[in-house]
Amino acid sequence: MKLLKSWIPSANSSVTEFPLNNLPYGVFSTAKLGKRCGIAIGDMILDCQAVEESGLIKFNSGPIFKNPFWNNLMDLGAEEWTRFRKEITSLLSLDVNSHKLENMLVPKATAELHIPFLVSEFTDFWSCKHHAVNAGTMLRGTENALPPNWNHMPIGYNGRASSVTVSGVNFNRPWGQVKKPNNTLPVLAPSKRFDFELEIGAIVGSKSKGPLTVQQADDIIFGYVLLNDWSARDIQAWEGQPLGPFQGKATATTISPWIVTKEALIPFKCGPPAREVELLDHLKDCGPMFYDISLTVSLTPKKGKASIITETNYKEMYYSSAQQLAHHTSSGCPMRVGDLIGSGTISGSQEYERGSMLELSWGGKEPLHLANGEIRSFLEDFDTVTLQGKGTQEDFIIGFGSCTGTVLPALKSPYSN
Amino acid sequence: MKLLKSWIPSANSSVTEFPLNNLPYGVFSTAKLGKRCGIAIGDMILDCQAVEESGLIKFNSGPIFKNPFWNNLMDLGAEEWTRFRKEITSLLSLDVNSHKLENMLVPKATAELHIPFLVSEFTDFWSCKHHAVNAGTMLRGTENALPPNWNHMPIGYNGRASSVTVSGVNFNRPWGQVKKPNNTLPVLAPSKRFDFELEIGAIVGSKSKGPLTVQQADDIIFGYVLLNDWSARDIQAWEGQPLGPFQGKATATTISPWIVTKEALIPFKCGPPAREVELLDHLKDCGPMFYDISLTVSLTPKKGKASIITETNYKEMYYSSAQQLAHHTSSGCPMRVGDLIGSGTISGSQEYERGSMLELSWGGKEPLHLANGEIRSFLEDFDTVTLQGKGTQEDFIIGFGSCTGTVLPALKSPYSN
Repeated sequence: MKLLKSWIPSANSSVTEFPLNNLPYGVFSTAKLGKRCGIAIGDMILDCQAVEESGLIKFNSGPIFKNPFWNNLMDLGAEEWTRFRKEITSLLSLDVNSHKLENMLVPKATAELHIPFLVSEFTDFWSCKHHAVNAGTMLRGTENALPPNWNHMPIGYNGRASSVTVSGVNFNRPWGQVKKPNNTLPVLAPSKRFDFELEIGAIVGSKSKGPLTVQQADDIIFGYVLLNDWSARDIQAWEGQPLGPFQGKATATTISPWIVTKEALIPFKCGPPAREVELLDHLKDCGPMFYDISLTVSLTPKKGKASIITETNYKEMYYSSAQQLAHHTSSGCPMRVGDLIGSGTISGSQEYERGSMLELSWGGKEPLHLANGEIRSFLEDFDTVTLQGKGTQEDFIIGFGSCTGTVLPALKSPYSN
Repeated sequence: MKLLKSWIPSANSSVTEFPLNNLPYGVFSTAKLGKRCGIAIGDMILDCQAVEESGLIKFNSGPIFKNPFWNNLMDLGAEEWTRFRKEITSLLSLDVNSHKLENMLVPKATAELHIPFLVSEFTDFWSCKHHAVNAGTMLRGTENALPPNWNHMPIGYNGRASSVTVSGVNFNRPWGQVKKPNNTLPVLAPSKRFDFELEIGAIVGSKSKGPLTVQQADDIIFGYVLLNDWSARDIQAWEGQPLGPFQGKATATTISPWIVTKEALIPFKCGPPAREVELLDHLKDCGPMFYDISLTVSLTPKKGKASIITETNYKEMYYSSAQQLAHHTSSGCPMRVGDLIGSGTISGSQEYERGSMLELSWGGKEPLHLANGEIRSFLEDFDTVTLQGKGTQEDFIIGFGSCTGTVLPALKSPYSN
């Protein structure tokens, strides 16, 4: 696929993450405009409310950009998603008279970014085999690394939507109930094994009721974001039996501010991995639904520069978001507009491709060396973790923007008087 | 506490579940009025929109009964909850001139009931020791019935808010991935071990950020409903390791239509059970936060009358809803208005007090005999399960209304062509 040229010069650069081929959807604010839906294009943001008010874009159902989130567009259904994207593409194309739109652009550098959609519910999966094998090996040894169900279905658990925040929102290291291996009793203490997880989140754009096939599931995916599923390993280890992760995953979940649409990612589609066992009917592969998106994680300590600690690729997944969503609905579970589906930690086969500190430091046994000479087993106070993702074509890049967050020190005990 | 007398005669009966002392909040509809917030009083429903439009009740923040759910009142905070309840109590009292209000009453028998609030997120706990020991004994034997964390914290998992429906909404038996003990490979099939779970749900009425003490958690509870956490035991057994219940719990979750407020339940408050180990600071008991509410479950097969299969009491809980909520926030997890917190299955120490088919039939080994001569290990197609709950004082009852649902046959395979 070729770069689509725009009348906005910065969108035509070979290094921008936001060429006309991308058009990701976000929410921005400035002192003058307040909070609004916007579309990233080069180093500018197109103000969607202004475009709608000008009459250049119309919806039969009435105005949809009165509220600063994208759920209203999602609610209109896939045909309208396509029409809207086509019309915006056309308005920003090189061959269009730009003067009507020039006043509707805001320099990205002057805007603050906010969460781009209302998260209805958040589900997190565990669907990358390299990660599952790494985590399982540490817990149960090589022989029993994968539980018996793993090759047959995407294992998932419901997360907490209220924990989802946008890139740049920092949070305090959590307190929690933890038990040290040599103690008989647990204590209440700040987490000592606080971690990130490199993931991609798929956003459900249409509601559903009843089981969906993999193709039907893919059809209702609106777009994708980077997702950091911050995890307190010590809290998780003590609470997790028998009902799974709970407070260890509830402190914060950071997503990148721009929803990259499914259409923008078409050039990066790829097929499924080799299957060790045949998948059952509700999960059968049906066309390329994986994506070749390179991913990096960097860690910036309080004092010192960023170290790239992970380089991997979204195509390392064993189950696609569409398969996860199909499985999620197999019981008849209804889906709603704004549901967020986390891929699970994405790791590759190599050591430098591991998507969590747990794996990178092998449970703390092999601490990581940072560029400034510090070492890390898990995250320290004031560590900043930044995820980035991009798909690359010959003459353009589709980027997700940064997904970043800083671990602030734990609160003073909330229970002392 | 004494019965408060109302000018509505049916509210003064010693057998009504809805005396003036109760005033539970629901959403009703009639062909004429559409869908509205209402309050049950005797055999009538008070139309809240009409009361607000008449000016008899006012809110400084503007009208709150334009939408047919109670989240708007919750959003105003605990002081307004108390003021509203006091004013409604006063309007319906025997010593009040009733003629202004008579036209704002709808006979309950002519109205349809709907879900009373928008469920933001749903969390389900596992906090009744009799149930946990029963389930654990079946799975792991008497010695290891309880996991080591159980006595130290309320174990919970995030459920699926989109699965929550109101009493009377039926659903199809789920399909799911299941593996029979003697097979090596799983199959996709309708659940054969479909079950109910008798629970009470607490509704979070105020948002929060950061850890809450038990007292602070109790302060933001708005009220309670009966809750049936329908469970596909065979799906749950195969999917549950290592991340806990997922599709086995996602088909449906039925709640009773009336929110019984925390204030209405004051006469039934009781203290905590004896503690086997001292609870950590964030869970310490601080006053009576358990409730003496008798609970029954009846099962009505397609052909035949209802059999009462469970009789137990809400006071059998080991952790209160306030303790569950305090634990839920310990990691900093934000709470939102309309979050629903399931108690977990409530069972007593006796066989007839068990709150699920799993326990009643001891995993299918001791099938239950129904009044019509049929036997049951798990639920059959067209079985109707009805939960009821009431607190009893000398001269009045506080009831929850019925929480009922019927298991319809599984869909024809959604994946065949």
